[in-house]
Amino acid sequence: MTTSQTTRRTVLGGLAAVAALGLPAATGTAAAAPVRDGRPGPKIGILLYDGFSLLDPTGPAELLSRLPGATVTMIGERRGPVRTDTHRTAVFADRAVSEVDRLDVLLVPGAGDRGTIGAMHNPVLLDWIRRIHRHTTWTTSVCTGALILGAAGLLRERATTYWASAPYLEATFGVEYVPERYVQVGKVITAAGVSAGIDMALFLAGKLAGEEVARAVQLAVEYDPRPPFDAGDAATASPQLKELALRLLAESQQ
Amino acid sequence: MTTSQTTRRTVLGGLAAVAALGLPAATGTAAAAPVRDGRPGPKIGILLYDGFSLLDPTGPAELLSRLPGATVTMIGERRGPVRTDTHRTAVFADRAVSEVDRLDVLLVPGAGDRGTIGAMHNPVLLDWIRRIHRHTTWTTSVCTGALILGAAGLLRERATTYWASAPYLEATFGVEYVPERYVQVGKVITAAGVSAGIDMALFLAGKLAGEEVARAVQLAVEYDPRPPFDAGDAATASPQLKELALRLLAESQQ
Repeated sequence: MTTSQTTRRTVLGGLAAVAALGLPAATGTAAAAPVRDGRPGPKIGILLYDGFSLLDPTGPAELLSRLPGATVTMIGERRGPVRTDTHRTAVFADRAVSEVDRLDVLLVPGAGDRGTIGAMHNPVLLDWIRRIHRHTTWTTSVCTGALILGAAGLLRERATTYWASAPYLEATFGVEYVPERYVQVGKVITAAGVSAGIDMALFLAGKLAGEEVARAVQLAVEYDPRPPFDAGDAATASPQLKELALRLLAESQQ
Repeated sequence: MTTSQTTRRTVLGGLAAVAALGLPAATGTAAAAPVRDGRPGPKIGILLYDGFSLLDPTGPAELLSRLPGATVTMIGERRGPVRTDTHRTAVFADRAVSEVDRLDVLLVPGAGDRGTIGAMHNPVLLDWIRRIHRHTTWTTSVCTGALILGAAGLLRERATTYWASAPYLEATFGVEYVPERYVQVGKVITAAGVSAGIDMALFLAGKLAGEEVARAVQLAVEYDPRPPFDAGDAATASPQLKELALRLLAESQQ
């Protein structure tokens, strides 16, 4: 059976097997790159909190986990499963905030109304974010995560966030909303809504590991986006489409 | 304090609060859309298996969960956390395959070498995929998930998969590899690597709920991709970049 042959070829290892399958061999390949343990790469921590939006942390995690020597850790108020805004999915927090004192990179994802407001009023989370921020190389957010950074007092001058939260961002934190995929001010990088975390992560990969590695990461996740529609930009969306978008979100987050 | 005022405005509900915050109100808003319970929308099941790649299921889940009346369920061999290819993240399988007899949409994500080979040789998973496929409206895959569909005997004529697995796909399953973001053959839709699941999910959203809803979903997740580099297409990548990409993957999947 062909698939059995595949197993034997892969288990035997070697460049031939890697080339034949086209997949990176798990272990034992003669030409394997240096073992990652002992290579100090960026320690990246992604905060998870109840009601977060699934793609906000997972898009960046997928990309950033490919950086040489990087460790990407999901961190929650406690260890264990953290539910998303739809209640129908959970991602595991492998560490609690009390166990993490230092990160090179912090990422705060966004959420729907319930999750964002909850996090903005959670002194444990805000306090931890402020403490970690003191020593990060980069402090980042996706979507309404920028509002949480704002609640922690970390926004200056300009930022971006979920398109529908732009007025709130400006009114509440006195920073200018910038309609870009991501905005860097000093060591703080804020990203636009949900899917923008992937573009931001690629930018961050370039900052952390150089452009050549970032380009390789982009190829590794085959990120050559070609959406079948062209409706993702709020600046050109009709009021009706905006209303429908927000209604679909609200219905899915009940 | 401004954030306290926000809480009071949101708790009181009403269009003004929704508009001010720019976020969909969680519950109790006078102008809330119809309650989702009782509205039969597409039942979407996403298979999780040990060693899967994080973005493959979570990108599509984020988008498809916004379809009216849709339920998106993560399904594993057993209930509980399922680890990704980096070992450093886990997504919770809320159902076991033994508990799911019927789906409108099945999605099989991809993985690295270890996860893909494991799933391709797992008779429980392959058997379940075949049984579910009999009654789906759409059977889909992301990345090397196409190889798993192939192992289940579900590929015909043409398909796409992770770029590095193209030769293996053709040699093993006798279908033509198509270098597109996604390929539809009958009710089977295969997608290219990792991030391509998002483009495929948008296409699928249009099929399930019509173009206007799909465009609203695109806006809801602000999917207006603008990557800082242009290196995601394997067709134009140098051999060196391909080698670096596969090496980064292999190192992160050890």
